[in-house]
Amino acid sequence: MPVITEYIRFASKGHADMIDITPWVAEKMEGLPIKDGIVNINACGSTGALTTCEYEPGLKRDIKEIFDTLIPAGDYHHDQTWHDGNGHSHLRASLVGSSITLPFKDKRLITGTWQQIVFIDFDNRSRRRELVLQFIGE
Amino acid sequence: MPVITEYIRFASKGHADMIDITPWVAEKMEGLPIKDGIVNINACGSTGALTTCEYEPGLKRDIKEIFDTLIPAGDYHHDQTWHDGNGHSHLRASLVGSSITLPFKDKRLITGTWQQIVFIDFDNRSRRRELVLQFIGE
Amino acid sequence: MPVITEYIRFASKGHADMIDITPWVAEKMEGLPIKDGIVNINACGSTGALTTCEYEPGLKRDIKEIFDTLIPAGDYHHDQTWHDGNGHSHLRASLVGSSITLPFKDKRLITGTWQQIVFIDFDNRSRRRELVLQFIGE
Repeated sequence: MPVITEYIRFASKGHADMIDITPWVAEKMEGLPIKDGIVNINACGSTGALTTCEYEPGLKRDIKEIFDTLIPAGDYHHDQTWHDGNGHSHLRASLVGSSITLPFKDKRLITGTWQQIVFIDFDNRSRRRELVLQFIGE
Repeated sequence: MPVITEYIRFASKGHADMIDITPWVAEKMEGLPIKDGIVNINACGSTGALTTCEYEPGLKRDIKEIFDTLIPAGDYHHDQTWHDGNGHSHLRASLVGSSITLPFKDKRLITGTWQQIVFIDFDNRSRRRELVLQFIGE
Repeated sequence: MPVITEYIRFASKGHADMIDITPWVAEKMEGLPIKDGIVNINACGSTGALTTCEYEPGLKRDIKEIFDTLIPAGDYHHDQTWHDGNGHSHLRASLVGSSITLPFKDKRLITGTWQQIVFIDFDNRSRRRELVLQFIGE
């Protein structure tokens, strides 16, 4: 049973922008010599998060707005030291989490019909992002 | 080291109802020809979440109430499009997460004494639910 | 591909104290006969959580304060039954999650430069803590 490391790189816009990464993960898996297993996905960086969501325009807006309510931008201790104004970005990412693990079987990711794997960029500016995909399977 | 896929199906009541799935996961593991490894559990569907909690009646009520405070039911953009009134359900599930991975050793799930694996149904109605369990071990 | 179970034990102070566990996880990995794979880390106990964060003094304070805002200490149903005053600790831990899985490659944990693996002790008193590390790799 091999361990195979893949990477996904893309640009994201920040401000709780939500991106559907499901097709990219599926595409990486399709090229690999394994059909059953798990993929452990990690967002390298402390202002990005991974979770699942129904990816549709309404929820894209709702995600932004609920985090503006729960953890608003503001004057956090982090900002007083580093002056990058993204203390709230770090707190949001730590709350949601930067790691997710999902199963695949017969070369198909197993998720719900209306459930996508999403990256949320909580930073306060656009950035280059890298995800690490660790596949383990047979 | 095999990969083994199992499923758990049950009915849940919605409205942040919390269900202890630990015995069902343990029962599935007991029947498998592996004794050490991990189980990656995923809730198929975007209004259900998986986490751990001390499963006792007080916290069952507290979970409902804290989510009614943090992410109340309301008029979300999702609801304006789909008119199913469960925008808050999606947001809650994305925040908690729909995936959890746990270790087992000598055919015993390793969790704390007062710590159970729980499914929280955040939808606004009762539903049939399916969890996918991907076992990897030896 | 072996499965290897390791444990990390330490004392924590409670009250949302955040501890950088990255060097301890890396040290455990270094001693093992595997170089590529994943490590599934679980906090045994229902008032501790695992996530990632930039580990710096400002965010250590911000984490405490944001949870005091989101899920304040109070008179929860859990407390009315058990009288240990840590209902908020359980709710916070369930929200953040007690499990995280991370990749390693060429004997190096893959995280962002400013991203550490952190344990947050949400209990209301100091405690002995145990983390279980399940390594799977080759």
